[in-house]
Amino acid sequence: MTAACMQAYDGLVQKNSFALPSYTTVGGKTIRDVRVGWESYGRLNQEKDNVILVPHYFSANSHAAGRYRQDDPVPGYWDSIIGPGKPLDTDRYCIISIDSLVNLNSRDGITITTGPSSIDPDTGKPYGLRFPVVTISDFVRIQKALLDSLGIKRLAAVAGVSMGALQSYEWAAAYPDRVKKVIAVNGTPSQRPFAICNLESWITPIKADANWNNGDYYGGPEPVKGVALALFNVIVAAQHPEGIANNFQYQWANPDQDPLAALENDFLVNQAFRAGGLARATTTTDANEMLYMTRANQLFVAGTSGSSVDPALKKIKAKTLVIQYRSDLLFPAGVARDQVNALQKNGTCAEFVEIDSGGGHLAGVTEIAKAGDTIRRFLMSPQ
Amino acid sequence: MTAACMQAYDGLVQKNSFALPSYTTVGGKTIRDVRVGWESYGRLNQEKDNVILVPHYFSANSHAAGRYRQDDPVPGYWDSIIGPGKPLDTDRYCIISIDSLVNLNSRDGITITTGPSSIDPDTGKPYGLRFPVVTISDFVRIQKALLDSLGIKRLAAVAGVSMGALQSYEWAAAYPDRVKKVIAVNGTPSQRPFAICNLESWITPIKADANWNNGDYYGGPEPVKGVALALFNVIVAAQHPEGIANNFQYQWANPDQDPLAALENDFLVNQAFRAGGLARATTTTDANEMLYMTRANQLFVAGTSGSSVDPALKKIKAKTLVIQYRSDLLFPAGVARDQVNALQKNGTCAEFVEIDSGGGHLAGVTEIAKAGDTIRRFLMSPQ
Repeated sequence: MTAACMQAYDGLVQKNSFALPSYTTVGGKTIRDVRVGWESYGRLNQEKDNVILVPHYFSANSHAAGRYRQDDPVPGYWDSIIGPGKPLDTDRYCIISIDSLVNLNSRDGITITTGPSSIDPDTGKPYGLRFPVVTISDFVRIQKALLDSLGIKRLAAVAGVSMGALQSYEWAAAYPDRVKKVIAVNGTPSQRPFAICNLESWITPIKADANWNNGDYYGGPEPVKGVALALFNVIVAAQHPEGIANNFQYQWANPDQDPLAALENDFLVNQAFRAGGLARATTTTDANEMLYMTRANQLFVAGTSGSSVDPALKKIKAKTLVIQYRSDLLFPAGVARDQVNALQKNGTCAEFVEIDSGGGHLAGVTEIAKAGDTIRRFLMSPQ
Repeated sequence: MTAACMQAYDGLVQKNSFALPSYTTVGGKTIRDVRVGWESYGRLNQEKDNVILVPHYFSANSHAAGRYRQDDPVPGYWDSIIGPGKPLDTDRYCIISIDSLVNLNSRDGITITTGPSSIDPDTGKPYGLRFPVVTISDFVRIQKALLDSLGIKRLAAVAGVSMGALQSYEWAAAYPDRVKKVIAVNGTPSQRPFAICNLESWITPIKADANWNNGDYYGGPEPVKGVALALFNVIVAAQHPEGIANNFQYQWANPDQDPLAALENDFLVNQAFRAGGLARATTTTDANEMLYMTRANQLFVAGTSGSSVDPALKKIKAKTLVIQYRSDLLFPAGVARDQVNALQKNGTCAEFVEIDSGGGHLAGVTEIAKAGDTIRRFLMSPQ
């Protein structure tokens, strides 16, 4: 037990580390010396039954709430709903979040993860493409190992947005007796084969960058351009025409350089998003890790560990709240609603709530407070 | 007048060529020796007032209907609604379609277009990035020049899907007295700034391909990988989870190579779409032309020729039918509906029809027959 889980939450957080000497993946490969980071907000009760697990989204890490230092410019991504008196109430619950494997922030100096850029103990060099393919099931199994080590047997809830929603479904399907409630925001139990090609389109610039060199670039020139543009694609995919029009009008990147005058001239929105991608490509994100994270999501079907069978939705016992933002173009609301109907047919107690927003997929992060009352009511409801 | 416009339509079509010795772009640059191809289906009447113009979509050319030879495997893309007795009735109307500038099919041996891969008469070499940026307004101005040369003063209708819809709006806004009716399928008068970054994400693999070399690759190694992956992105962007699930289940590219076993192994849907992109990249599409076509669409606001002012929707007099497929993720139906409301507020007679389909943006091509009765009724209605 670390000190983190024993203290009342005051908004200051720390990254903890969890290590497994050896882990065997869903695909049957063994990884030695697996390490992931984790954070917690709120105090674990004596019964250890007040934990809400918050798995993170595709490009995030376990920094879901709070600040490492008082003067951090921004808090964790769901800070608006995690804290004392907030919907995920740290006076009542102990919120835990865990860095994924193959995390997109492996180079930020804070995230703790294991992936293709990690040093292979057998060779003393980065794994590269020798790192085994991992799945969202693997992320969840590592999470379970950590919770086991803390003596936490049953979760009050698992709540996540986007890939965090996928992991929430995976928890409920893989460990139906260990999850009381699921809150899935902007995600579904499966969206293959759409997810397969849609995710693949994000990483096309990495595949087109000769420096990627089939994953063998450590110690040489790295595919920074490809990674930057892939991250640009991730940013764009989370937008919607309404929300983006509020943030960017028709503006040029440089007031003197009309995009009508020359192909080299650009628009402000592209420049801004590209700068966001480039900043992360140079300081945070490894190309191979982005490809492995993409593959983990492509393989996802809740409860079936990446196999080819249909979603094992019938296993889900947890009371389920599905929150879908109207303008999400990655997980369209209509598709999510159909999948809730399928859950209900299987006997799962599932509720579908659509939130009105023009903010696109990203609104599940930036506008999560809009769902605050719904989440609070759901957590208070009988199981 | 070519023979094409004088004959009853029998399903066999030919490509015609139109040349302008000199053309000055919206951006104020002059292009010498502009050539575009065009096709027609049906007979021009004596009054020359029975023309329906069908501008084409982003990756298409003017082959909207019919076959060049009886044994062509597939006809033009809207063949299901263009022909004798069909909604765009060739017994009544003369349908005309015109290849765009900077067309994505410049190398297919059929399309006639002028763009950065064309030979600059001043240098005897391909223009490359010296080719002026052109806009959708330029596409429309060239179309008008061709129609003027045929003595066609007023269009019974302009009808198009996707970029074809954008051009239809542009016609109605730029030449309000020359367009009686507009049929806009899966498109809007403007979707900036979303369109700007969304279109940019398609071409990220070209920008990441070192062979692109800032557009200077003619005579050297070409960015075939980047173009193939960019075309993959275009294919993916036109999908929706429902429709794609009907066409592709969870299948591997190679039954012996589980994508869970190695990162190199892939899924069937990716392989199929990538093969589609690669085929066109090697035989049809020039990288710079794809970038210029992207820019033309990014600059689009109906009636304002790429400037920064708001859409000049008030200029539109044409009776307007907006058809939007429910599952379109590029032009979400709700956004299109809002823009129809804006048209109506301006006094335009505009009707919004949503077609139920899970086929995504692409359904405006593959399932256009579903809108057939609506189109027929609209064309028969009084102006």
